[in-house]
Amino acid sequence: MPKHGLRSLDFLRGRVELPHGSGGRATAQLIDELFLRHFHSEQLAQGHDAAVWSPPSGRLAVSTDCFVVSPLFFPGGCIGDLAVHGSVNDVAMAGAVPHSLTVGFVLEEGFPLCDLERIVQAMASACQCAGVSVVSGDTKVVERGKADGVFVCTTCLGTVPRGINISPTRARPGDVILVSGPVGDHGIAILSQRQGIAFDCDVVSDTAPLATLVAAMLAVEPDLHVLRDPTRGGVAATLNEIALHAQVGVVLDEAKLPVRKVVRAACELLGIDPLHLACEGRLLAICPPESATQVLKAMQAHPQGQDAQAIGMVIPPQGLQCFVELQTTFGGRRIVDWPAGEQLPRIC
Amino acid sequence: MPKHGLRSLDFLRGRVELPHGSGGRATAQLIDELFLRHFHSEQLAQGHDAAVWSPPSGRLAVSTDCFVVSPLFFPGGCIGDLAVHGSVNDVAMAGAVPHSLTVGFVLEEGFPLCDLERIVQAMASACQCAGVSVVSGDTKVVERGKADGVFVCTTCLGTVPRGINISPTRARPGDVILVSGPVGDHGIAILSQRQGIAFDCDVVSDTAPLATLVAAMLAVEPDLHVLRDPTRGGVAATLNEIALHAQVGVVLDEAKLPVRKVVRAACELLGIDPLHLACEGRLLAICPPESATQVLKAMQAHPQGQDAQAIGMVIPPQGLQCFVELQTTFGGRRIVDWPAGEQLPRIC
Repeated sequence: MPKHGLRSLDFLRGRVELPHGSGGRATAQLIDELFLRHFHSEQLAQGHDAAVWSPPSGRLAVSTDCFVVSPLFFPGGCIGDLAVHGSVNDVAMAGAVPHSLTVGFVLEEGFPLCDLERIVQAMASACQCAGVSVVSGDTKVVERGKADGVFVCTTCLGTVPRGINISPTRARPGDVILVSGPVGDHGIAILSQRQGIAFDCDVVSDTAPLATLVAAMLAVEPDLHVLRDPTRGGVAATLNEIALHAQVGVVLDEAKLPVRKVVRAACELLGIDPLHLACEGRLLAICPPESATQVLKAMQAHPQGQDAQAIGMVIPPQGLQCFVELQTTFGGRRIVDWPAGEQLPRIC
Repeated sequence: MPKHGLRSLDFLRGRVELPHGSGGRATAQLIDELFLRHFHSEQLAQGHDAAVWSPPSGRLAVSTDCFVVSPLFFPGGCIGDLAVHGSVNDVAMAGAVPHSLTVGFVLEEGFPLCDLERIVQAMASACQCAGVSVVSGDTKVVERGKADGVFVCTTCLGTVPRGINISPTRARPGDVILVSGPVGDHGIAILSQRQGIAFDCDVVSDTAPLATLVAAMLAVEPDLHVLRDPTRGGVAATLNEIALHAQVGVVLDEAKLPVRKVVRAACELLGIDPLHLACEGRLLAICPPESATQVLKAMQAHPQGQDAQAIGMVIPPQGLQCFVELQTTFGGRRIVDWPAGEQLPRIC
């Protein structure tokens, strides 16, 4: 296919080379033979510097994320689907219906084209599952040793349906805190892979798109107060952030918190609090007490929320402090702090 | 300011550390003390995973770019303003009015906070000039040696005014090709800095926002056919791409092509074709012959287009070939090919 005057890319043995990022023939070839082949969209077909289209009417929701996860491939996913789910979920956490995605790659010279193709394939099928189209992209290549294989940056756009008003400031004392499934799977999946730790049974990342789960929840309670996916920093950082924004306290019930046995065992072994572990396919919902049971049922009826649980409550701030507390299974209470140092670099 | 229970960031001697990317206290501190201090916007103040707002009505234009320029600071700019201008200009090339920007950073552990602050300051003032707000952002940190200082990924959103229909497929035989100023300044500025080549007088990058120039051009000719900024791959790659998309040929007049003396001299020294050099603040316009003179005047009346020139014409394809040709000052003709290899890695 000498459209670019070059031999077709060799996706078996080929590698990323500096000219793939130069803006010349090799770049055009990589776009045609890899990206356009997997990412089909009306907007990419325009061949324009910018995509132009009319999105569904309503308020726009936009979120951007960079992904530097290491290793690039892990049990349950890879940097590709993780990057799609990550941005799609952030938009879903505003109650929006995600529709469009932009994708930027920073590639290291010498990276195998077969791995890049696997990543792009994973992105394409994650996009299809999540109902988003890739509308714009960019690729840069840096010299060997100046990056670590592949970094991905995604930006997701969605539209917020009328009447939805989800915001971290809306948590009110009395609200119920729901979680959509067991926490910490992603964190332990990455860690076990990275450090070569073997557990009794394999832990698989929870990476998944959450927009249809959110839609199912909003169908029974359009007035959900807060939604958040507890990624980096885990449930601990997410709830501390919300507490600070809304000027409230939070109390969690340890007995209700879903954590898989193997994840709990790994946490004990590694000295990590499961509340500090990143999830990539779970959400926290803060919901008026009147509708909590109904919302929980709607979650449990959805494939992404089968193991959903009510795990705690929003309480008034204690003095001027917006604490997150945990009622332990032994009847005590302890503060759930932000993760302090860098326990888990490059978790996403 | 013990909001995060940490001492304030030291922007004189401090460095980026892994915890700045962990999603814990240190991340929250970096966001508050650096990003929120420089990037003010209603959307960032929401403290949400996604920004939610109602953009101006009309078709949406979106473009994403990654920036890996080396060195990070160069005569006339840095990776920060370059990253803002790059995405803003791509949106402007669709005839859109840019309004919003997302920003992703991949930082290398150990990168000086003072340099990061300079970059963020440059971004903030470039955003102000270009009339865009930062609505969403993300920061990741990788270990020392796993990146090269800073990579930036920006996505710009804009709105296309009614009646504007700019597309690379709309170039028609007879259309006039205009350039907004001298080409190649950015490419030579980077190269001279990188290779320590000294020229008679300093070459400064042309990095600049082009949206108001585009608005001035559209005011006199709403039916501009094509707009493109000749970044990576330069004028040569840009016109070859357009020729291919529109199935036309292009002929350029070398005598009319504005290239600064010092840039021409550097090109001769380095054996580079100025048509292959990246510009980061120039545009090419392809415009109906009837209005070309008027559009050119409007460009020359704008600060970003003072040295604008008509440099060539669109012609019918020759056989099945969509060539870009150059009529040389010596009366000959030569093919202007895509840049073939990697002459200038990490130019943007």
